[in-house]
Formats: sequence, structure tokens, C-alpha cells
Amino acid sequence: MKLVIAIVQDTDAPGLTKALLERGFRSTKLASTGGFLREGNTTLLIGLEDEKVPEVLELIKEKCRTRTRLVSRGLPFAEALDPFLVQPVEVQVGGAVVFVLPVEHFVKL
Amino acid sequence: MKLVIAIVQDTDAPGLTKALLERGFRSTKLASTGGFLREGNTTLLIGLEDEKVPEVLELIKEKCRTRTRLVSRGLPFAEALDPFLVQPVEVQVGGAVVFVLPVEHFVKL
Amino acid sequence: MKLVIAIVQDTDAPGLTKALLERGFRSTKLASTGGFLREGNTTLLIGLEDEKVPEVLELIKEKCRTRTRLVSRGLPFAEALDPFLVQPVEVQVGGAVVFVLPVEHFVKL
Ligand code: NI
Ligand code: NI
Ligand code: NI
Repeated sequence: MKLVIAIVQDTDAPGLTKALLERGFRSTKLASTGGFLREGNTTLLIGLEDEKVPEVLELIKEKCRTRTRLVSRGLPFAEALDPFLVQPVEVQVGGAVVFVLPVEHFVKL
Repeated sequence: MKLVIAIVQDTDAPGLTKALLERGFRSTKLASTGGFLREGNTTLLIGLEDEKVPEVLELIKEKCRTRTRLVSRGLPFAEALDPFLVQPVEVQVGGAVVFVLPVEHFVKL
Repeated sequence: MKLVIAIVQDTDAPGLTKALLERGFRSTKLASTGGFLREGNTTLLIGLEDEKVPEVLELIKEKCRTRTRLVSRGLPFAEALDPFLVQPVEVQVGGAVVFVLPVEHFVKL
């Protein structure tokens, strides 16, 4: 038995939770902030059999991989003044930090 | 030294925390949602000596065991129309998911 | 790789987080209450290389050590009646409970 602690971005959490559940993995969500990732992250606890670890890591990779997104950012009112002042910028989103911990006993009541 | 991570229902958390404290076990409560149990759960962290693990697992079992409770549920206004439409239904409450993790160092400042 | 779970007082958390970051250690903050310490605590998750554990424990000790603070406490309106009724009292602040857990896999996406 292993305990996976996955710290993911808030925006990626629902998609990951859903994908995990579809494969039969339940996760518990802890409210978390700051730290490993930019503001607004979620810490998930996932208990699983040792042999399922690669499958879950793969899912996390798929749903939370670091990628860039174009965001229009400009000075306030810049667009009204001059649309060319509003430059779309690439921001990095996603990413995850994952710890796989050994579990000595696992009990489900 | 072990770290017990217990995910229990919100309704069972105060009773468990109190029972733990009466036996000298302090627990830290993390806000958590969804996942292993129905909505509204609490994740407790309990640090303890190896030989105390069975005692704590027993307490969790006692305070959080899965049990059924009768709940009156009916259609809105059903009772006004016909009391027999309001059937008490059995809902499952309680339950817990518990991980016992090995601890390499434990420090109390 | 190790996972440090540090339960510290809310008042000590920002100073510790800042000190950790200055040394290159990122931490994830979980909302937590009660338990090991007086009300209002923060649980930090810090992933780190085995050989950095002593450095991080030293930092936690430095920023969260148990110490006393003088607090003026009196009956409401006591000061108005008689300043000698307002006795500064020593209250204990700080303290931390730290678990160092073994990590089997660590993945950063
Ligand atoms: Ni195992
Ligand atoms: Ni031990
Ligand atoms: Ni290691």
C-alpha cells in the first residue's frame, strides 16, 4: 500500500479527481496554499496498491502537466487607448509535486 | 514512531478527537472534502508510539464505524399530502480510511 | 528524499515560510486547527533531500521555538479602576511538532 500526496493547481484538481475516480481511485482533497506551486493549489491524498502507482502518476502527468497558456494582459484601459498595447503573454500553468509514501497499515472501516 | 492519517466524517470528528485526547493522544485537524468518504470529512493527523497504534485504531473503529441511520425523506410537501409518502430511509453514516505511516524522526519543540 | 510535516503556530508560519524560501525550500501550507498546538496552527509540507533535513529542522527550531511573551490581561475596565489590577502575564507561544517521513518516489511535473 502506498499513500500518494499530490499537490496540484486548483484549476487542474477537478479534472484529475474525475479521471482518478473513473479508474476507481478515490482522493481526499485538502485545502492548501502557496509553496511548491503558484497560489491556489490543492493537496490530494490517494491511497492505492503498490502496483497501481505508475498508473496514477501517469494520470497526474496527463492532467496536470506544465503547459503555457496565452493570456491578454495590458494596462487598465490600454485597449481603449490602443489595442496594440494589449499584448497576449504566455503564462505557465499546471505542474504538480507528488510524493509517494510507504504505508505500514491501511484500514478501511 | 508512527503518523496516523485518519479521514473521518465531519460528524464523527469531534467525538473521536475528544476520545483520543482523553487517552492522551493529540490530533491535528485538516480541512478536507470529498474523496474516500461522502462530502464533509475531516483529516486527522495523530503522532504516536508504535505500540499505541492498535489502541488508536480501536478508538477510531469505535467512534467512526460504518452504521446506518434512519432519515425521514420525502418529496417536498409530501407529508402535507399524505404522511405515508414520507418513508424513513436508511442512510449509511460513519466510516473511516486510516493510513499508518512510518516516521523517521519526530521532533517536538 | 524526505517529506517534512511541520505543525506550527499561525503566528510563526509566515516567518518560517520566508526563511525556508530564502534557503531554497518551498513549502505547502495546509489549513489546520487544534491538536498538537494551541488553536490556530498551520501544517506545512516540505519536500527535501535527506541531507537537508538537519538544516530545515534547525530553521524550524529557530523560528518556532517555544518562548514566553508578556501579555497585559485584566478584567474588563480594570485598568480604569486601578492600573495595578492589570497584571502582565506570561503566555507560552511558539512550539512545533515535526514529522520526517520517508519518501519512496518524488515527482515534479
Ligand atoms: Ni504497500
Ligand atoms: Ni517508530
Ligand atoms: Ni530519500
